[in-house]
Amino acid sequence: MASNPNSPLAISLGDPAGIGPEVIAKCWDNRATFDLPPFVAIGDPRSVAAVWDGPIELVEDPRQADAAFDHALPLIQLLAPEADQPGHPSVAGAHCSLDSLEIAVGLARSGSTSAVVTGPVSKEQLYGIGFQHPGQTEFVAERCGVAPGNVVMMLAGPTLRTIPVTTHLPLSRVASSLTIELIESRGRAALRGLQRNFGIAQPRLAVTGLNPHAGESGQMGTEEQEIIAPAIAALAAEGWRVTGPHPADTLFSEQSRARFDAALCMYHDQALIPIKAIHFEDAVNVTLGLPIVRTAPDHGTAFDIAGQDRADPRPMAAAIRMAAKMSALRSESA
Amino acid sequence: MASNPNSPLAISLGDPAGIGPEVIAKCWDNRATFDLPPFVAIGDPRSVAAVWDGPIELVEDPRQADAAFDHALPLIQLLAPEADQPGHPSVAGAHCSLDSLEIAVGLARSGSTSAVVTGPVSKEQLYGIGFQHPGQTEFVAERCGVAPGNVVMMLAGPTLRTIPVTTHLPLSRVASSLTIELIESRGRAALRGLQRNFGIAQPRLAVTGLNPHAGESGQMGTEEQEIIAPAIAALAAEGWRVTGPHPADTLFSEQSRARFDAALCMYHDQALIPIKAIHFEDAVNVTLGLPIVRTAPDHGTAFDIAGQDRADPRPMAAAIRMAAKMSALRSESA
Repeated sequence: MASNPNSPLAISLGDPAGIGPEVIAKCWDNRATFDLPPFVAIGDPRSVAAVWDGPIELVEDPRQADAAFDHALPLIQLLAPEADQPGHPSVAGAHCSLDSLEIAVGLARSGSTSAVVTGPVSKEQLYGIGFQHPGQTEFVAERCGVAPGNVVMMLAGPTLRTIPVTTHLPLSRVASSLTIELIESRGRAALRGLQRNFGIAQPRLAVTGLNPHAGESGQMGTEEQEIIAPAIAALAAEGWRVTGPHPADTLFSEQSRARFDAALCMYHDQALIPIKAIHFEDAVNVTLGLPIVRTAPDHGTAFDIAGQDRADPRPMAAAIRMAAKMSALRSESA
Repeated sequence: MASNPNSPLAISLGDPAGIGPEVIAKCWDNRATFDLPPFVAIGDPRSVAAVWDGPIELVEDPRQADAAFDHALPLIQLLAPEADQPGHPSVAGAHCSLDSLEIAVGLARSGSTSAVVTGPVSKEQLYGIGFQHPGQTEFVAERCGVAPGNVVMMLAGPTLRTIPVTTHLPLSRVASSLTIELIESRGRAALRGLQRNFGIAQPRLAVTGLNPHAGESGQMGTEEQEIIAPAIAALAAEGWRVTGPHPADTLFSEQSRARFDAALCMYHDQALIPIKAIHFEDAVNVTLGLPIVRTAPDHGTAFDIAGQDRADPRPMAAAIRMAAKMSALRSESA
């Protein structure tokens, strides 16, 4: 079912002992300043009450959220057997964070909510209760019936979007993990995602090299010539606007960024260093390739500062705003 | 002999067919706006005249430069057998660029000039005439009697300084090239350089991890635990203020940058992506560990735009300003 941009957004609170509840409550507090659409939180209300004095209104149906949003934080309640203390994660909290994710995805799948924004979970905690996925992204993909290989993580900020081809690999394994097919499929997913989620009819994709100076004509590595250039050629042959391999060090200057809509990067830090250096407060993690809209702030549970009123709500606010925009774009083009 | 900050700076023009002559002339044009101290250029005056209409005054001794600087670009003449056209490098031009570098270093060594700023050369051209060094940095080190392993390249901008531990290596060889000793010696050189060249009495060095999330406790690579952490511990045991291994992706946000004086990075792009994303126009390449002050703009010859009045002089201006500051600092502490 197509998403309805007039439905509220669903936000999973994430781990109840992390900073998710705090940043979501702060987003409601600052909903006017942050220019946020109505949303409904999903999780244990005690985790919000533990770090926030504001009004919470329990709702059973996302449709009730709209009316409540003006005067209270609408919340679909999931009670853990016991309430966590901020900064002290528990097995019960891990279950609660997984349940809230499950329900958030289900509501978006059924069209009751317009998009999913996911609060930060602890992978360590989730692994402890038998979670089998590398992260929330893969879990969401499975629940949406999409193969994990077909979803792509994008980091999106106001002036830069990056997509890592490989993600959580040791650096020593990056070069041997790159294949023409992998770069091609990630590139294609990125280009389609730019069309579908960002409304860019003819997206421009800049592809990085792997080595210093993009290998300098093979003098410092051959992956550019053997793997990356052929993948670029294959995408270009399909009619996509793709350039590269570009030396990664000069690709992210302000002037250079203006020349492409997204950069396809070969490994985690190549994609994440520039986006976090430039857009630390408002970089959003977007999952491309799903039937639903899903975004997330690009930070973790930060157990070390949970419950201290120190968490910055701006990344969560950026994730909410971006989800709302994407949802509106999708319904226009549907 | 100690450098004399009242002497002019020497600037080698670099390859006469590159953008060096143009950006140096533009720096003289804008010497007031850019707040530049007197400098003397070294090279073929025809390469400047080919791209610039301003006044050039030939001098034979750097001491004459001061008086000339007000009304003309002071230049120590090195005539190539024939003049290059901008954008068309030649063997004669390569010899000229090497000679100008040699003289610039010699004048700084003898104390006749206060520092060396090097214009961009073409390694390809230099290799063609039998140049044996990886780059200008190693050549300068040799002429100063310093082993290449004891000099360190730093990229320095207004809010960030980075030092790569490894430089022009294929990415696949980075992990196997890291050793405790290498990280330790680069770190020590960086820390001493921050004291000597930047006047920071107790410099704070942040050391990156190699892998995503700095390996996440060994789950994505073990170099952090086996190589990087021991090197940090060794430096800390000497009394240096060193932290890490830090996840590289979050280290370069504005807030994080404020907490260290320089970042020691494991490879080329890890050091250069953030500095060029943040400080593209005013990142300066500084060589630490030399008896003389040496800086350079962090760009190449750009043969493709030479002679078109398109080259941006701001990186060269930043390199000149930084050399002047370092030279003043050294003479204060001498």
